[in-house]
Amino acid sequence: MQARKREVYLDHAAATPLAPEVWEAMEPYLRERFHNPSAPYAPARRVHADLEQARAKVAELIGARPDNVTFTAGATEANNLAIASRGGHAVVSNIEHESVLACVHGRGATLVAAQPSGLIDPQAVLSALKPNTELVSIALANGEVGAIQPMRAIARAVDGERMRRLEDRDATPLLLHTDASQAAGYTSLNVSTLGVDLMTLSAAKIYGPKQMGILWHADGVALRPIVQGGGQEGGLRSGTENVAAAVGMARALELAESMRTEETRRLRGLSRALRAKLHDALPFAVFAGPAKEGDRLPGLVHVSFPGVEARRLVVLLEREGVYVGTGSACAASRMRVSHVLSALGMPEDVARGSLRITMGRATTQEDVDYALAAIVASVRSELARTGRTER
Amino acid sequence: MQARKREVYLDHAAATPLAPEVWEAMEPYLRERFHNPSAPYAPARRVHADLEQARAKVAELIGARPDNVTFTAGATEANNLAIASRGGHAVVSNIEHESVLACVHGRGATLVAAQPSGLIDPQAVLSALKPNTELVSIALANGEVGAIQPMRAIARAVDGERMRRLEDRDATPLLLHTDASQAAGYTSLNVSTLGVDLMTLSAAKIYGPKQMGILWHADGVALRPIVQGGGQEGGLRSGTENVAAAVGMARALELAESMRTEETRRLRGLSRALRAKLHDALPFAVFAGPAKEGDRLPGLVHVSFPGVEARRLVVLLEREGVYVGTGSACAASRMRVSHVLSALGMPEDVARGSLRITMGRATTQEDVDYALAAIVASVRSELARTGRTER
Repeated sequence: MQARKREVYLDHAAATPLAPEVWEAMEPYLRERFHNPSAPYAPARRVHADLEQARAKVAELIGARPDNVTFTAGATEANNLAIASRGGHAVVSNIEHESVLACVHGRGATLVAAQPSGLIDPQAVLSALKPNTELVSIALANGEVGAIQPMRAIARAVDGERMRRLEDRDATPLLLHTDASQAAGYTSLNVSTLGVDLMTLSAAKIYGPKQMGILWHADGVALRPIVQGGGQEGGLRSGTENVAAAVGMARALELAESMRTEETRRLRGLSRALRAKLHDALPFAVFAGPAKEGDRLPGLVHVSFPGVEARRLVVLLEREGVYVGTGSACAASRMRVSHVLSALGMPEDVARGSLRITMGRATTQEDVDYALAAIVASVRSELARTGRTER
Repeated sequence: MQARKREVYLDHAAATPLAPEVWEAMEPYLRERFHNPSAPYAPARRVHADLEQARAKVAELIGARPDNVTFTAGATEANNLAIASRGGHAVVSNIEHESVLACVHGRGATLVAAQPSGLIDPQAVLSALKPNTELVSIALANGEVGAIQPMRAIARAVDGERMRRLEDRDATPLLLHTDASQAAGYTSLNVSTLGVDLMTLSAAKIYGPKQMGILWHADGVALRPIVQGGGQEGGLRSGTENVAAAVGMARALELAESMRTEETRRLRGLSRALRAKLHDALPFAVFAGPAKEGDRLPGLVHVSFPGVEARRLVVLLEREGVYVGTGSACAASRMRVSHVLSALGMPEDVARGSLRITMGRATTQEDVDYALAAIVASVRSELARTGRTER
């Protein structure tokens, strides 16, 4: 076995390392500032104040009021909280995250079909709305093929239905929820601009800690807690608060926002070059996601090699120190063909040969070039092994 | 303002600092080993293996199978998961944690009255069982007055009802759940010995991280997830795993078990002396909890000073660097008279003057003596201020 030259992590959509700044912000609360924020003495009251400061910081960054920001144990929990809070009919897309699909399962929800690019047509959302629809849930960006949804246009469609109900003196509420976990750091998260009523965020996708999420809700939106008890988080999420993670979330979001423009530009450049070089080396490679660069997450390249098994590529690549995802790594059943790719109409043999390459803050041009060479070599070796030639 | 001589933290039932050994175990997973355990490449698979090793360690420590151990985001969530999984009638005590009481609220549950000592009579549990009772939930130790419940006897009572149902060919299931969060580190957690079907544990109470809990379930017990999505934790708790916290939990539990005998002995000695000295200095002090030392958590002293406001004592004590709890610090509404003290029949003016002093690993004899002097001085000063004399 030859010595490994390099380690290149290209699965930032599955997990991000903790940013050093986030680590620094969290460490005191993991160690000396361990007090229960509900306790009555000064050190505990200070911890409580720091928790509220973290909440205020998050609120400021998304253009919201602190009271409307709930810390949850992860984005999956936040999605569950958002969806469990509304009865009635729900409209979601067929490429939503498992946490959204699982929550609407058995509720008679309408699944709007995404376009083959992964983009969702606001008109399709409008057409799916029924008189008893109470919730629309569409992720701001799809974590698998990288489509950034036209959320403002979707919000306008939802608004149209609200106006109709108002005119008909129909009091059925209609809320728009977006899971912005994968979009954070690459698109604006201003809730007014987006026009949403509920928004999920994940610390784990923005170089923050695991199992720390946010559910923001608009004024007047009543939520129904799924974890009850001591009444923390305004009664919406009981349990002694994870202050370290909340403080980490605030710092992570602040950092992501401050780096957004530059990181987007930089990662777009890296992605563009990677796509071009992959296409040149392996012309049969199929790229998923929207054609327009501005409609895609900047650091995500979803590429399929028809007839090649991605699970085998992953093994070959890991020998070279290159770590990429296949489909959605969030699912515990790892090697199943992704429901997203099926929903987008990708043929199974193409889907089985799919890699999801997601770059991040630490990714350099050298990393990308190294990974490119490894991918090209692995795909060629697999084609040779199975007796296929490049098509 | 005089210089502070010392800081004495005596609220370990509300929060414990992270043990250095736990910190060491967790740190790698907060930093370099950040990978998503569901991802397919080697570093992620190693993280996944470490998560499973943590689960196996927890299982071993409670005498269980790893498959039956679910990591949750805290004990409150674990209690919610346990209780939400059973429909039908529930029997709980009237001194359970808010997370248990909130979950059975509105379900027509029977609240068994604890004895004034805080102990629960197994016969009272038996009498509360109805033909449609499906769940009994009694904490192994009460975190406020420190009563350690006769769980084996309660389990035998529950078993008796099960036998009756079996003889009557009545298939209604009946499960016994215990929240062992406060008991961990001081009593055996062997699930077979305890005779329970479901057990909650909290890392945050045993010098581990916040928002990390365990729900153990016996073979054949079907749980209904409250957080759905990617199918992690065998589908019982979706969301990318908090491996750092899970590894921390395992190490914390291992440590708590290894120190249990010696810590119990040491803290009993400190508590015994504190009670005696408080009684000598302030003979009107009222001690709550069981009379028998072996029936109480070793590090917990619940003392009330009738006619004195505990909220004022807390302020005076914090000036001296002494941090104690009043009632249940887990409740977000801090200064309300505790539902536990009300349930035990404590008069309101006594309850209002209640301090919960909980010692821990770092507590020394000198700390206790310093705290004792501060408490005695504060109580005397409050009595003098309000024109009362010692009774």
